[in-house]
Order: sequence, then structure tokens, then C-alpha cells
Amino acid sequence: MTTPLRSHVLGAWHTPTDEGRPLHDARTGEEIARLSSTGIDFAAALRYGRETGGPALRELTFHQRAALLKALGGHLREHREELYEVSAQTGATLGDSKFDVDGGIGVLLAYASKAKRELPNDTIYVEGPVEPLSKSGTFVGQHLCTPLHGVAVQVNAFNFPVWGPLEKFAPAFLAGVPSLVKPASPTAFLTAKLVELIVDSGVLPAGTLQFVAGSLGDAFDHLTGQDLVSFTGSATTARTLRTHPTIVRNAVRFSAEADSLNFSALGPDGDLDLFVKGLVAEMTVKAGQKCTAIRRAFVPADRVDEVVAATRTRLDAVTDMGTLASADQREEVRRAVKALTAAARIVHGDPDLGEGAAMAPVLLVGDPERAEPHEIEAFGPVSTILPYGSTAQLIDYAARGEGSLAGSIVSEDPAFVREVVLGAAPFHGRILVLNSKDAKESTGHGSPLPQLVHGGPGRAGGGEEMGGIRGVLHHMQRTAIQADPDTLAALTGRWVHGARRNPTDVHPFRLHLEELKPGDTLVAGPRRVTQEDVEHFAEFTGDTFYAHMDAEAAAANPLFGERVAHGYLIVSLAAGLFVDPDPGPVLANFGVDNLRFLTPVKFGDELTVTLTCKQLTPRDSAEYGEVRWDADVTRQDGKSVAQYDVLTLVAKTSATQQ
Amino acid sequence: MTTPLRSHVLGAWHTPTDEGRPLHDARTGEEIARLSSTGIDFAAALRYGRETGGPALRELTFHQRAALLKALGGHLREHREELYEVSAQTGATLGDSKFDVDGGIGVLLAYASKAKRELPNDTIYVEGPVEPLSKSGTFVGQHLCTPLHGVAVQVNAFNFPVWGPLEKFAPAFLAGVPSLVKPASPTAFLTAKLVELIVDSGVLPAGTLQFVAGSLGDAFDHLTGQDLVSFTGSATTARTLRTHPTIVRNAVRFSAEADSLNFSALGPDGDLDLFVKGLVAEMTVKAGQKCTAIRRAFVPADRVDEVVAATRTRLDAVTDMGTLASADQREEVRRAVKALTAAARIVHGDPDLGEGAAMAPVLLVGDPERAEPHEIEAFGPVSTILPYGSTAQLIDYAARGEGSLAGSIVSEDPAFVREVVLGAAPFHGRILVLNSKDAKESTGHGSPLPQLVHGGPGRAGGGEEMGGIRGVLHHMQRTAIQADPDTLAALTGRWVHGARRNPTDVHPFRLHLEELKPGDTLVAGPRRVTQEDVEHFAEFTGDTFYAHMDAEAAAANPLFGERVAHGYLIVSLAAGLFVDPDPGPVLANFGVDNLRFLTPVKFGDELTVTLTCKQLTPRDSAEYGEVRWDADVTRQDGKSVAQYDVLTLVAKTSATQQ
Repeated sequence: MTTPLRSHVLGAWHTPTDEGRPLHDARTGEEIARLSSTGIDFAAALRYGRETGGPALRELTFHQRAALLKALGGHLREHREELYEVSAQTGATLGDSKFDVDGGIGVLLAYASKAKRELPNDTIYVEGPVEPLSKSGTFVGQHLCTPLHGVAVQVNAFNFPVWGPLEKFAPAFLAGVPSLVKPASPTAFLTAKLVELIVDSGVLPAGTLQFVAGSLGDAFDHLTGQDLVSFTGSATTARTLRTHPTIVRNAVRFSAEADSLNFSALGPDGDLDLFVKGLVAEMTVKAGQKCTAIRRAFVPADRVDEVVAATRTRLDAVTDMGTLASADQREEVRRAVKALTAAARIVHGDPDLGEGAAMAPVLLVGDPERAEPHEIEAFGPVSTILPYGSTAQLIDYAARGEGSLAGSIVSEDPAFVREVVLGAAPFHGRILVLNSKDAKESTGHGSPLPQLVHGGPGRAGGGEEMGGIRGVLHHMQRTAIQADPDTLAALTGRWVHGARRNPTDVHPFRLHLEELKPGDTLVAGPRRVTQEDVEHFAEFTGDTFYAHMDAEAAAANPLFGERVAHGYLIVSLAAGLFVDPDPGPVLANFGVDNLRFLTPVKFGDELTVTLTCKQLTPRDSAEYGEVRWDADVTRQDGKSVAQYDVLTLVAKTSATQQ
Repeated sequence: MTTPLRSHVLGAWHTPTDEGRPLHDARTGEEIARLSSTGIDFAAALRYGRETGGPALRELTFHQRAALLKALGGHLREHREELYEVSAQTGATLGDSKFDVDGGIGVLLAYASKAKRELPNDTIYVEGPVEPLSKSGTFVGQHLCTPLHGVAVQVNAFNFPVWGPLEKFAPAFLAGVPSLVKPASPTAFLTAKLVELIVDSGVLPAGTLQFVAGSLGDAFDHLTGQDLVSFTGSATTARTLRTHPTIVRNAVRFSAEADSLNFSALGPDGDLDLFVKGLVAEMTVKAGQKCTAIRRAFVPADRVDEVVAATRTRLDAVTDMGTLASADQREEVRRAVKALTAAARIVHGDPDLGEGAAMAPVLLVGDPERAEPHEIEAFGPVSTILPYGSTAQLIDYAARGEGSLAGSIVSEDPAFVREVVLGAAPFHGRILVLNSKDAKESTGHGSPLPQLVHGGPGRAGGGEEMGGIRGVLHHMQRTAIQADPDTLAALTGRWVHGARRNPTDVHPFRLHLEELKPGDTLVAGPRRVTQEDVEHFAEFTGDTFYAHMDAEAAAANPLFGERVAHGYLIVSLAAGLFVDPDPGPVLANFGVDNLRFLTPVKFGDELTVTLTCKQLTPRDSAEYGEVRWDADVTRQDGKSVAQYDVLTLVAKTSATQQ
């Protein structure tokens, strides 16, 4: 008997208390490990996640969590050779292993970097603008996202033992929610190796990633409305889990990615080689064991013969395809191919050839009017070519998959592409357009990317993973806050319109990042704007737009009625009013957001600017941070003429004085 | 026997083919109508929605759908007296009726106006920025939302027979998805009246709103992955629907709003009157039959006596409370109060008093350590006061509701409020902070607003409705598009970075809205920036920041290294380059978005601006529309020094030439 895989729960390694079931090397059939989770107290593990992992994570800001993800990614990258080695036992080629391992590490790093750019250095996420809810502005609303206080239970598929767990873990971790990772049995030994590396790295706070090698026992009975389940696997299992009484009773957030009859369509004008290359890659990479692989290859009826011929040629040239994950899996794929042959004929490959977990690619040509090609997912190196007659028919066929993860279209014709994409979009989570312009840099049909959503409606499970920050927010509760502006500002740590302003003793540009507070305010002005100013500015900049220069034409303009000052003059004069000229903590004005000119400025108007510190984003890895200021330029009667955000970089006290 | 309520399906009124069950006037118990949906072909009704309503809606832009919602709101407002009249039969006071009817009309109008402001005048919704996916930019990603091709089946609760259906219908309609509306039995006659007014208005395209008076029969058996179900009602029914085999098999989007033990907390410092006023309003408006009503009133242990006394006094002063929706409902509330008394004692009111559907308010004081007050929702004029000892204890108690729709906190103390809000947020869909600053304008604890999400995690069903555009997107499929920039631009109708630019024969400012196309481009310049320009601009505007004026200090700045031009000078000169001075279709530059200064401009640099038409938003109700231009200011070596969006108003050809 081989060694049992260990789980990692309650902060320690757990060795099963029984023999468990054998796991095999996909290449040789040899037993290489045993799998069992017997002896784990699942209720306790979930509690440990909630009570140890969750609070530890919630102490950290998004940026701090991102830094840990980055460190973890770096550690795994250093040890990736060890993962490749174990990965070979799943039947993967080195290329397949890199797809899985490097892909997973890539998700960690992409999320780390996205979080630093797109999330605040804070523990809560403010979503969307302040919503005015009352006339005088004393009552406003805003949406706030806070981490759920539960555990993200992640049930993974066998085909991506590294990428799968990491793409579920990264957004949960960033959100502040601990994970409980369950790998699929056939390849659990590789995920176990991954978790060993993670635990050894010492990077993650205790309780933020637990690992169950084997069944989840009664874990689901202990789920609460604060927990989540993310599932990748078969539609049958998805159904069982989705209807688990505890999940239903507590409305546990449940996200599934299940069966998917992904399509690729060759346009009437589409490049044959591009199409065939993609098709063969999807059939052979990971031996076709990808949830996103092309199962339905739509081809114009008059191009079927050339596509078949070219695909056969290219398939014959493939030399380094791996095996399926197990002999059982090969049997399942054979059964699926058999079922497909009710509506399709095999034009390449023999499903009955092959030893153990090995299987040669099988290409079929099918009848798209039959249900089978749109319903039977042969989860291996199997694709069916389906002829179509018109664009409308193609769109109809694509929809017959009843919801898929991915579609792709090979065409240079924008009108055809637009029609197919918009027609197929409601049924697909991702659609790739391949042509001569993007082929070189494209990541191909089958690669979900951390920036983009992964999941599909209907048959594909209705779930949605990744998609950048969307995947993080999936693990958080969105709460609509209603309050007065002062209270809202105190809650969010951001100054909002209507909240108290705090005039500072010194010019706020003299304050370092740590000394500034939201609400700190400078009022400067007034500055009178004269006709001479406007004419001078027009001449100097060359902006002689008639509304500034020509009284008669300006009078005819429906918005102005008379000559007005340039918008760019207003913001330039405002800067002249609020800038503090001497060297100090403010290093640069690197941008402006949401500038709106609200009221025309006429000759003789006097401008005052009110500059208020709105939001501070310290950078953990830099000697400065970003400060967002609210600029409100008003005229003599108090009316706003322009409002905008001024973005500056401000040094920390620790930085050498500039 | 009274008349049966008619359904409206397949574009026509349907009279049931059997007698149906009686519906009663809540005030008198008198039978007023019969309810049955017998004879409806539900599969056909769903098909009719999908094949007639859906395509008709998808032809319209968001703005056109918004205009129809607005017209519908106007029509209903004109006829609201008729609705009040029927509403009285549900046991509602005139105030209650207005809450329901005017609230519902308000949702239509709020959504109409939000759509015009926040959605494009287009049939698809582009979500988020372009995601770079490759080094040279030939491969990019973007998320696109398209309407699901199914029907939104809306199962409503009895307590808001007008507001409930309208708040579910409005976002579905805006999204381009037809609705099938099912009212709850006891008050179905009021929703039937509403639908009669809607049908009579002739505003809605055929098939976009169908109405089933009575049971949904076998409708759920015919749902596909493109349909949606939105449910409001009991947790038991939610469970049954959620686990319906077809919903599970096809991963039908299911949103539920079920039981909710909402809380209101009086802070140690909180204003007694404010708290008690809110509590009594929630107990008596709609006779406490609001999903958001306060069931748990948390009060500092040492303030319980004064709260009880003040609440009793105020309850005694209530004169115009309506009845419950039916005598059955009153029996259910009585049973719930009985169950509550295991952990609470009644301090005001007698649940056994009252005839028919009438019931007097019941106030209890309970033991918060017991489960009952956190679990039993008495859906009537019933609240339980629960004492708390510390802030931590209050947060813990709030969470024991295991997920609620709404919480509120009465306090002036920002630290206390922040602690409670952030502690309770993961368990709540909405939290209101009430104090002296917002009390006057606040809409109160129990009012969901179209701008804000309505729904809650866990026990509350895990659903989310409204929340502005979020509720619209809930009815759409998000699809990640991967393509080259040209194809993406053709798909979205928006120019994106990297896409082809089309130099126009005339200056693009001479083109009217209908003549402009995304990609139309003007290149203007170069303009040399000299030390004299910078010094002149500094003197003129007053912006003498050292980085522009002081060589030594600028050299010490980590970002510049030498004197640089003002950012505002760069954009001013750029405008001078791209503006076409004479009167023409461009009426005004009303704003700038996402301005970033990317590379410092040094003395002697030569600036060129490339202005590209990015997005057109025609206004159906105005003689002009918005045009968003991409401005890219580059220096002599082609490097971008500033990028931003310029927002202009541009006249249609139909407008009188300005």
C-alpha cells in the first residue's frame, strides 16, 4: 500500500485514519497514493476557517493581501519544477503541466497586481457613486462591500489540479474570505503537492487555506449563509450540491461551472489554418480535458471537406499528447463518443484504440439538426464538425448548446462577426474572435484569463469566476448604506460631498500622507476673470472657439447666450489658486477625473476654489501614495462652475524631503 | 359567485375555465373576486414572451425602453385614484395605498431617469474598461452585457400588490427581457387592476408583460437557462422553487427575497424619539406587513424602560392603522406571537383582540440570548425589544438574524456607528443610520429605494433586486469578448485604443451627430512648448509650482528631474490645437474624464494632439447628443504625454444651425 495523502485542516497536517482508496499514475496505472479524509471534523474545520482565517484576513487591507498573493506566486514559481514532476503522473505532457502550473501561478500574480491597481489600500470596498436620496443632500446612499464571514468551500475538477484551486483561491483570499480546498480524486496528489508547497512557504495566515484530500464528509451540513461554494465538475454533481438542504435553506452562495458544449465557428471568409490550428490545439492540449475545449466545430457546409482534410493532417502531426487522467475517464469518453455516433460519423481516429488512460484524438462530422452534438460532452480529445448554411443558422446552432463557457469565431468580416457575437453572447460566458490581426498574440480559444469572467449560463452551470475584481466582490456582501454625508464619510474613510470640511492650519500641500485626513480643506480665491483674460488665453493657447471670442455667435449658442471663459482657463486659474509653490510633500498632479463644467463663467465673474482631501491611498511599497482631492470652483454667488477630482502623489513623512 | 380575475397572456385577456377560489375584502370579509389560472397554456405563454416580447424589446435601445417606462409611469399616475380605491379592499389605509402605489410608480420613473443618465442609447451594455491581454495590444478583452433571451418570471408577495410587481418589472424591461407577473393570491385583485391599467395604456410592446392571476401551473417545467425567476415570499416557498428540477437542471437564475428579522438599534447616545418614531412607523404602516419592518429592536439594557414607555405612548396615539391582508394572515401572525412568547413577554397589545383581518399592534420585550426573537418573523404589527450590553454584543445579536434585508442604527456617535455598520454589514443588504443630521430627509428604515440594492444574504434569501443599473444587469448575460481592437470597436460601436483611426476630410467639429462615426480623427500640431510659455502660463494663472519654475528644486523631484510644463498648460494647448473656432455642430465641451499625465513635458518638446471620436450618445428628446472624444497628446518622439476623454455636446442635423 502506498502513502495516504495528507489533508491540512485546523492549522495542521491530518493523516487519514483509514486506508482510503488508491490513486494511480495515469501513464502506468501504478498505484501512487491513497486518498481519504476520514477522521476530519468538518464542522470544526469550517469553524476554524471562520474564526481564525477570516478574522486574520479581515485585519489586512486589499493591498496587504495582494502582497501575500504575490509572495506566494513567487514561491510557487521557484518550486514549479517539483509541480511539473508530479503533474507528469496525471498523464500531462510538460506543455500541459506548464499550462496548469504556470497558468495557476499567473492567476495569483495577475490578481496581486490588479488588486494594487484597482482596489483601495483598505479593508472595505466602496462600490459606485454616492446616490443622492434627498433634496437638500442631508440623506445619501452608497454601496459598501464587506467580506463574508464564512468559508469559501472550493470543489475542484480533476483536469486542472493546480490552476483550478488557485483561480478559486485568489479572489476569495483577496476578498478576505478563507478557503477550504477540495481537489478531485484522480489528480488529488498534485493538488496535495501544491498545498504542501503553500504550507511550507509560510506566507498565508493560519486558517486562510485548508485542504481536504478526499470527500467533504458532512461539511455541507454545516454551511451557513455566510459561506460560499464554488464547484467545477459534472452537471450531475452540481445538481446534487445545489439542492443540498443546507445550501437551499441558508441560501448559501453557490457558483457552478459544469458541462459545456463550446463552439468554434469558421466564417465563410475565415482563415482555414487559423481555425484548424485552434481546433487541433483544443483537441490535444491536456488531451482535450478542458472545460473550455471546442466540442462543436461549425463550418460552412461547402468548406467541410477542406476542414476535415486539414484537421486530419494536423492531427497526424501531433506527437506529444498526454493521456487522460485515468482509465475510468477514458472509458467515459469512449461511451460519449459512442453516443455521439448516433448523429455523427467518425472521420479520424479510433476511440477503441489505446491502452490504460491513453486515447487517440477522434474527429467526427455530425448532423447539427440532431440533439446529440449539442448535448453530449465527450471530455477528451474529441470534437465534432457541424456544417451550417447561413449566419442565422449558425447562431441558432450555437444557442443549442443551451449555455456554454466559450465560443470562438474565425473571420475577418466585422459585420459577420458582429452578428454572430451578439447572437451568441446571451448563451456564452466568453467569446473569442480570431483573425489575422490578433492571431499572433491571442491566447487561444481555451484559455480563461483572470481579467475576464469564466463561466457560462444554463448547461454551463450559471456560475461566474474571476473577471478581475468581479470575482473578489463575489465573496463580499454588498450593503446599501443610507446616512448623512458626515456619517458616510466616517464609515468609508472618504470625504463625500456634503460632509464637513476641515480648514487646515497650514496649506494642505504642506502635509505628508500620514498627516492628511479626508476632509482637510483649502479655500482660495477669488480671482476675477476678465474679457482680457479670456482673449489673452485664447491667443496664447490658440483656442479661439467662437463661444469665447464672438459675442454674436455666442449669443446664438443655446447653452451660453453670451461670451464665456474657456473651461481649461477655469481649471488653470483654479490650480493657480490652490497650488502651494514651494517644494513639499506634494510631488505631482498626475491626473484629473470627472471634470464637469456646470455653469458658464462670464466676464467679470470671480472664481473661488475649494480643495478638499477626498481619499488617501498609501502605497505599501513606495515612499508616497495617491491623494484624491475634490476641487469645487465656484463663482461669486456660490454656484459651482466646475467640479473635478485632482489626483496627486504625496510623500510619506518617512520619505526624504523633496 | 363574484367575477373571476382575468389573466393577460399570449397578447389577450384570459378568463379562467373553472370557478376558482374566492378572494375577500380584508376589511369586511366579503367575497370580491375569484382567482384561477385554469386553461392557460404556460408553455405557450413563455414561448410568446420569448418569441414576441423579447425580440420586440431587444429592438429598442435602453433610452427607448426608458421612455416607455416613463410614459407608463405617467399613465399610472393619472389613474392612481383607481388603484387607491381597490387598494382599500386589501385592508390598506390611504397612506398605506400611497406607499404601495406611488412607491411603485416612483420606481418606474426613477428607473426611466437613471437609464437615460447611466445607460447608453444602445441595445448592448459595455461593462468596464478594455483589458489589455497582450504586449503589442493586438489582443484585448472587454465585457459586454446582452439581454437574456428568456422570460423573467416574477412571483410577488401579497403585501405590495403594486410596488412589488413594478419593482421587479422595471429593471427586467429596461434590460430587454419580458416579464411574466404572478401576484400573491390574497391581494391579486389589486395587481389585476394595475395590469388592466397597463394594458389599457397601450404603452408596452406585445408580449413584454404577461399576467397570470392564479397559480403558475406547470410553467416552471418549461423554464430554460435563459429564463429568470424572481421570488418574494416565504422561505418555505423559496426553497420549493429553488429546488424545482428544471430550475436546478438548467441553472435558471433564481433570486429570492424571503424571511427577514430586520433590526433597529438605539445607540447608547441615540435619540429616543427618533428611534421610537421609526419603530412605531414600522409596526403600523401596512400594519407591519413589510419585509423590511423592524422585528428586533435592540436597546441598551439601561434604556429599555424608557423605550417601552415611549413606544406604548406613541402606539396609543396611532389612529389610522389598516388591517392585515386576510383573516388567515392574522391567524398566522397570532401563532408567531405565541411562539415568540417562549422567549419574550408582551408589554403592549393583545394578539387575540381584533375581528376578521384586524389586529392591534403588539410590542414584546425579549431575551436576546434565546433563538426565537432572531428566528420567528411575525409578519404583522409586531416587534420585540431586545436589550444589549455592549457594542460587541449588539453586533453579535444583529448577526443572529442570519441574514436580513435591513438594519438601522440611531446614533450621533461616528465611532459607534462605524463599528456597528461594519460589523453588521456582511449580514445585511441595507443599513440606515438615523441621527439629527438626516432624520428630516430620511425615507426611514423600511423603504427600499430603486437606487439601492434590496435583498439580503442567508435567511433573507440571498437575492438582490434594484440597486439601480445592477438590477438591469441581473437580467443580462455578461460575456467576455476577446478580439483585436478593430473588431472590438465594430462590436461595441465604440472606438477603442489600438483601433483604426479615420482621418476626416473636414474638421470633425464640422460634422453633425449623425455624420460622425467612432474612429473619426483629427491630428493637429505640433506646438512647441518653450520655457517662456511655461513662465508666462505660471505668471498668468498664478500656478508657480516649483517643478515648473525652479530648476534646482525640480531636479530634486523624483518624478521630473528638471523643470517641466504644467499639466493644465498641456491640455490648454491641446485644445488650442484641436478646436475649430467657427460656429458649428459642436456646442460645448462640458467635461473631461480620466485625464492622466503620462510623461513630463520639458522645454522645447513639441506637442501633437490626436482627437478621435470614441462614443456617440444621441438624446432622443433633444436636438443634440453627447460625443466622447479620445485625446492623445504626444511629443516629438511619439510618446504620449497626456491622455483623456473630451466630452462635447454636438447638434443633430435636424437642429437649427447654431
